Parts: sequence; structure tokens; C-alpha cells
Amino acid sequence: MVFSSELIENAVTELSRLPGIGQKTALRLVLHLLKQEEAEVNKFGEAIMKMRREIKFCRICGNVSDNGICSICSNHSRRQETVCVVENIRDVMAIENTEQFNGVYHVLGGVISPLDGIGPDELNIDQLIARVKEGNVQEVIMAISPTIEGDTTIYYLSKRLKDFPVKITTIARGIAFGGELEYADEMTLARSITNRLPLENYVHNGK
Amino acid sequence: MVFSSELIENAVTELSRLPGIGQKTALRLVLHLLKQEEAEVNKFGEAIMKMRREIKFCRICGNVSDNGICSICSNHSRRQETVCVVENIRDVMAIENTEQFNGVYHVLGGVISPLDGIGPDELNIDQLIARVKEGNVQEVIMAISPTIEGDTTIYYLSKRLKDFPVKITTIARGIAFGGELEYADEMTLARSITNRLPLENYVHNGK
Repeated sequence: MVFSSELIENAVTELSRLPGIGQKTALRLVLHLLKQEEAEVNKFGEAIMKMRREIKFCRICGNVSDNGICSICSNHSRRQETVCVVENIRDVMAIENTEQFNGVYHVLGGVISPLDGIGPDELNIDQLIARVKEGNVQEVIMAISPTIEGDTTIYYLSKRLKDFPVKITTIARGIAFGGELEYADEMTLARSITNRLPLENYVHNGK
Repeated sequence: MVFSSELIENAVTELSRLPGIGQKTALRLVLHLLKQEEAEVNKFGEAIMKMRREIKFCRICGNVSDNGICSICSNHSRRQETVCVVENIRDVMAIENTEQFNGVYHVLGGVISPLDGIGPDELNIDQLIARVKEGNVQEVIMAISPTIEGDTTIYYLSKRLKDFPVKITTIARGIAFGGELEYADEMTLARSITNRLPLENYVHNGK
């Protein structure tokens, strides 16, 4: 693409580094920003730089926080004995949005993936073991994506945790609510039959 | 959406102000930026703020420029006598990318649209008349989108320019190259028949 201005070219290059944003979209965003007041654009840039500069990660769970300990870990109305292990911050937000979980989290920062060079040492795993070792944790819920890497991570964690008096669970997997059986993939359908529940354990939506 | 960090919430809010970017996409971008080095994120923010702060608009044509006159108007190998009138900067870039035009531009900054409160006074029209009045312009090409507002603008400009010894042309409209007749809309097809060309005027692609 030909740019008649180096300033615009730089801004387009930076914006097109973002995932899912190509040069054409970046140019559209730049032309939009050009039409905004200078103060607005400064607010935009500052908010992003300030976030990166000042963000901290919770010493306990690895979630993002504005100071040393995140708002979930420091909230004493939440069950500190139930720890939900997730891959990343986005998963924390997804679960928080359901408003169905009243425990705390542990953010691994990824899953074990030898192909990508991510072993257990690259993840926030030792801190999880240390939390369990302290003795206050009663249940560890594995809320990790059901991929090969996710399952490997769950298997690894369960081996590391097996000598502690802690209950280990995983989130239920099966046919999504509103999903139709005939469109489910075979693996999901097969597992949902294998892991069938007694009807009295079935929690109706909204119950 | 529930954010456990105000810093993240602010950044997401700012990013989701951009056109075509909703909260979920903004969050994905924020989490991507969080993983980058602080210096990289600063470079990102600075490039955008610097662009808005330092950008200038060409005194002659209204195109963006890094100083007072844009690189097209100050390029003496371009035909200053042929002025292509466009709606916005993006159109300049689109035409420049074709590498088929060796004249200069005039950026109106929009089209006449009474419904949106945009009259001739809101646009860069007087400067165009002044350029023509100076006497060096031989041809004004209207490269404006064929919408009702676009056609109104062309009509208005042609009335303002009719007393000057200048040739007024518009870009050709018709069936796109590679387009199939049966899928063309009726208006385009009708106009392309009305405005048919003698075969000897037909420029083959690549000729």
C-alpha cells in the first residue's frame, strides 16, 4: 500500500500487528482516529500504555490485579477453599460472567504443550502446589479446555496433587445447552454417554 | 462484562470505541498487548498519538502530509494541471495504488449530504474553486462514489466550475472487470448501456 505520510504509515504498521487486524482494517482505524479530537486519541493511547505499565499479577493466583492481590483473592466472601484452575485471564472472566462460581482461581498462563516448547516449568504450577500444600484448599476444579494439551495438563496436575488430601474435579463436558445431538461431534457425544449422570443429579437450567 | 482490573477495563473501553471492534474483540486485543514487552506497547501507543498530534493537511489539496504540502502536490513530475476530486484520503490511497494516475488530487472531506447536515460550506470546495481560478488547472476529474449524495456533489461542483475554461470529467462507471452481467444491479447495467463506448475507445486491460 502507498502512504503519502510516514506518520500514517507507522500508525498503520503498529495497528496491523494486532491479531486479526490487517492493513486495510488498520488504515480504516487510523482514518477514524484522525477524525477524533487530539485529546481523545491521547486518552486512547495513554489507557493502553498505562495498562501495560501498571498492570500487576496477583501473587496468589496469577490473575491480573491493579495492586499485589486481585479483587477475587482479597474478597473474603468467596470460598478460598475451592480453587478453579484455568488457562488464562480470559477464562477467569468467562467464568465470572456466569455468576455461578463463588470460589477463587488459579491462572496457569497456558497449558503444557511440548510442541510449542511449553513445559510445566513455564507455567504457574509450583505456586498451585504450594497453595494446596498450605492445607486450606479442599477442592481443585480443572476448568481447562478439553484439547490434547489440556488433558495432558490435567493429567500432570492430578499426578502432582495426588498425595494431598484434596478433591480434584473437572468441569462437566457434554452436549451444550441448546445444542442438538445430531450436530455434536462424535467425541463429545461418546463422552457424554460414557459420563452419563443419574437423573437425580441432573441440575435443570435455572434450578 | 466483569473485569477484575480497572486498568484493563479502561483499555477495553477505549479499544471498543474503534469502529468494528466490540468488547470481546477489544478484550482479545488487550490480552494480546498484555503479553507484549512494555517497550513494544509504548511504541504502539506513541505511534498513534504522534500521528494525531503531528499530522498536517496539505494546504493545496487537503490530503494528509507530514509538513505543509503533501508529497503528491510537491512532486513536480506529476501533472499539476489534472486535478482528481475525491471524497477522502482513503480514495487518494486507493487511486494511488492503481499506479494509473499521474495528476494531483483535491480531497473534499466528504460529500454534500443535507440529511447529515453537511452542506458545501463544510467541505473543501472553495479551495478547489480557488485552485481552478488561478488558471493552471486544465481538467477536473470527479472520482466520487456514485451515490445520491455523490451525484449531488458532482452536480454542485460542475455548476460552480462551469464558467471556468476547464474540462470536467467523471470516472467511468459500469460493469466491473471480472463482473458478470447477470449479477450486476439494474442501475449499473442500465447506465453502462446508456454510456456505451465506441469499440475504438475501449481500452483493453493491460493495453
